[in-house]
Amino acid sequence: MTDKPLILVTNDDGITAKGIRTLIDVMLTIGDVVVVAPDSPQSAMGHAITINDTLYCDPMELDAHATHKEYSCSGTPADCVKLATQQILPRKPDICVSGINHGSNSSINVIYSGTMSAAVEAGVEGIPAIGFSLLDYSPNANFDACKSFVKEITLSVLKNGLPKGIVLNVNIPKLPFSEIKGTKVCRQAKAMWVEDFDKRTNPQGRDYYWLSGEFKNQDKGEDTDEWALAQGYVSIVPVQFDLTAHHFIQELNTWEF
Amino acid sequence: MTDKPLILVTNDDGITAKGIRTLIDVMLTIGDVVVVAPDSPQSAMGHAITINDTLYCDPMELDAHATHKEYSCSGTPADCVKLATQQILPRKPDICVSGINHGSNSSINVIYSGTMSAAVEAGVEGIPAIGFSLLDYSPNANFDACKSFVKEITLSVLKNGLPKGIVLNVNIPKLPFSEIKGTKVCRQAKAMWVEDFDKRTNPQGRDYYWLSGEFKNQDKGEDTDEWALAQGYVSIVPVQFDLTAHHFIQELNTWEF
Repeated sequence: MTDKPLILVTNDDGITAKGIRTLIDVMLTIGDVVVVAPDSPQSAMGHAITINDTLYCDPMELDAHATHKEYSCSGTPADCVKLATQQILPRKPDICVSGINHGSNSSINVIYSGTMSAAVEAGVEGIPAIGFSLLDYSPNANFDACKSFVKEITLSVLKNGLPKGIVLNVNIPKLPFSEIKGTKVCRQAKAMWVEDFDKRTNPQGRDYYWLSGEFKNQDKGEDTDEWALAQGYVSIVPVQFDLTAHHFIQELNTWEF
Repeated sequence: MTDKPLILVTNDDGITAKGIRTLIDVMLTIGDVVVVAPDSPQSAMGHAITINDTLYCDPMELDAHATHKEYSCSGTPADCVKLATQQILPRKPDICVSGINHGSNSSINVIYSGTMSAAVEAGVEGIPAIGFSLLDYSPNANFDACKSFVKEITLSVLKNGLPKGIVLNVNIPKLPFSEIKGTKVCRQAKAMWVEDFDKRTNPQGRDYYWLSGEFKNQDKGEDTDEWALAQGYVSIVPVQFDLTAHHFIQELNTWEF
């Protein structure tokens, strides 16, 4: 071990996804890297953890010339962080980065996001953490424009630290680097998915559904992640996992139960 | 349909669990009930949704004398709410209740909770929602003491409504009714699980792990859910899904990226 920062890298698209390979390349320019990532895609897993099944976590060599270590895990992104900190890493990491996700985790997507669940899990364990996502769902998305933003934001968190209970949710627009206007600190837009299930019948005559839907942003604010992304900015939302609606406690105390 | 409230009932322990059967019994005394719940246990699923697989959702008759409808769904708790509102219910329900969970969803457990993910999903869709949990993991837990609290809290939400963006997380201590002191509106305690993986080797010689761990509450506050439960109160935490750490935005804006 060196005196370079120890960086835990994970994601939810699986260890071979192009996004995490880009993230690893960037992190290798910053510190000592250990990768613990799912062996298969875990998108939309939310903050799931594996309590009723066994977990495998095997060393993996994806790059014969690599000097860093990688582990492929049968669990969810949150499982990966738990396993990494408790079983694999030699010490508490200086930072955990998750992603780069293939697809947006802005606004309400944060609650469904496996990428962000890994960052939140690290945050719960007191590790500064960032989830990175590119607004491009394609497996062959081009992550080139992400690199310098990912690096600068990670260095900034390493330098400044993050308060207890807060992690960062970073989304990057699908634009060439020259067209990205910079970064904006934002709040989560009040948006939702309006579902539109596709109902089909299987060959045995049983009905089934595919979940689809349309993203609806009702939030016209110019301080939201959706607004920033639409304007060509990288959005940075500080995310907390104290879910208490503190502002409602006083009123709720007036209710009769 | 009557002019009684339309109540969507779901959970994460599966449609046959004792907790949801109790919840259904209580809700039948309040309004018109439709049950859409997972066909198998989905505990610790967080806010997972099913996007890469098919969803089945079949009518089910668990009680030959029942006048209400029940559906068993192959998906997660959040899937159940989405399917219910979009494909099954005749109109937007007046309330969604989830549980009664077999086991605590207090403090940090809220982020892993399938029970609460169903309530949050309903909240995102603008439906008043409550997640109920009993601090007893046993499949044969005794839910008798829960009944009157579940009823009173549900009636109170139906009467008062809930502000947009807020749902309730209700936890009930494992005590006889006579020993429960009442309800307390609380904030989520700052607590965490300290993992302790149980590492084993399978018959083929490959290492695997079981996730276990110890719950650690570092929060000495007497306004937390953990404190209330330890004192014998039912805890009621208002939960929001705007995860933005608004209080940190100003400082984050001073950082250089």
